[in-house]
Amino acid sequence: MEEIVKESIGARMILYPTPVFVVGTYDQEGRPNVMTAAWGGICCSEPPCVAVSLRRTRYSYGNIVQREAFTISIPSEKYVREADYFGMVSGEEVDKFAVTGLTPARSDVVDAPYVQEFPLVLECRLLRKVEIGVHVQFIGQIVDVKVEQSVARESGGPDIEKVRPLIFAPGDSAYYGIGARLGESFSVGVEAYG
Amino acid sequence: MEEIVKESIGARMILYPTPVFVVGTYDQEGRPNVMTAAWGGICCSEPPCVAVSLRRTRYSYGNIVQREAFTISIPSEKYVREADYFGMVSGEEVDKFAVTGLTPARSDVVDAPYVQEFPLVLECRLLRKVEIGVHVQFIGQIVDVKVEQSVARESGGPDIEKVRPLIFAPGDSAYYGIGARLGESFSVGVEAYG
Repeated sequence: MEEIVKESIGARMILYPTPVFVVGTYDQEGRPNVMTAAWGGICCSEPPCVAVSLRRTRYSYGNIVQREAFTISIPSEKYVREADYFGMVSGEEVDKFAVTGLTPARSDVVDAPYVQEFPLVLECRLLRKVEIGVHVQFIGQIVDVKVEQSVARESGGPDIEKVRPLIFAPGDSAYYGIGARLGESFSVGVEAYG
Repeated sequence: MEEIVKESIGARMILYPTPVFVVGTYDQEGRPNVMTAAWGGICCSEPPCVAVSLRRTRYSYGNIVQREAFTISIPSEKYVREADYFGMVSGEEVDKFAVTGLTPARSDVVDAPYVQEFPLVLECRLLRKVEIGVHVQFIGQIVDVKVEQSVARESGGPDIEKVRPLIFAPGDSAYYGIGARLGESFSVGVEAYG
């Protein structure tokens, strides 16, 4: 039997997978902005909520506080360049939609824009702001989810194999796609051990 | 040009990717327990923190409150059955380590156990408890990260292509692996639009 040896690498933010969230907001003048964030995830089932953490210095930070709303657009693999770019420049200086040629769409349920070309969108009303450290966590109540017809199942929900979301690997400084389907949840475990 | 048509599917917890966290705790008698959770993610860089949401009814919930500590072990693809099983039975009734044959290892920095066979482990001290709704979010400060030697880069951190983490696709009720490397972060965006 192979010996398992673990090494300590210190207190680092390394965890797989982390998501690639493109956070959409309006600024004071009503200009649409987007920024990319990987620190976040679903945080409650009822009410359905998603959390995303931003530094106070981000242009989007003030937008969310003021409008009490944001969207999360999930880019598909073919938009890896746009998603990366959205995380590297500030909306205070650059119109990221104009530069990339992507289209801001106004949410019909919250006061925030989303990326029309991205296949999956969560529209959120700000529920809570949690001060942690250099990051502030915004908890958004999911008011509606929009799915592009071309990536939907017949049953209505999205198909991850058609959405083809991005995965961010912190530490590796890289984006990945999704790979093989490994099994059905709430099923493979019972078959083996139930 | 193809028309983009988006459909509303209501307020649902659908987002890609979500992680597969195996949360390790000790109960009142010091028995090690693990449960699987997908509602979570990194939430702060300084101090380094990770969030995971649990229902109050979970056996692990009381363990975290009492011990003020938990670990997150990241299973590799070959442990998809064990990870699924850990999310389906309660540690109040079943010794999940005994059933699966996996090994509880005592953390040397926090009062919680982790899964020895899993390649990547975050050891966390409870920093904060955020009541949201049916889920309570535990914010843990990452005290140390342990990486199995066989999945480490020469530089010390883990290599996601060797860790081979699981991805949970809510709505699809399925687990996936990671796929192709699509590009370098903080780089592909600048090359295209910088």
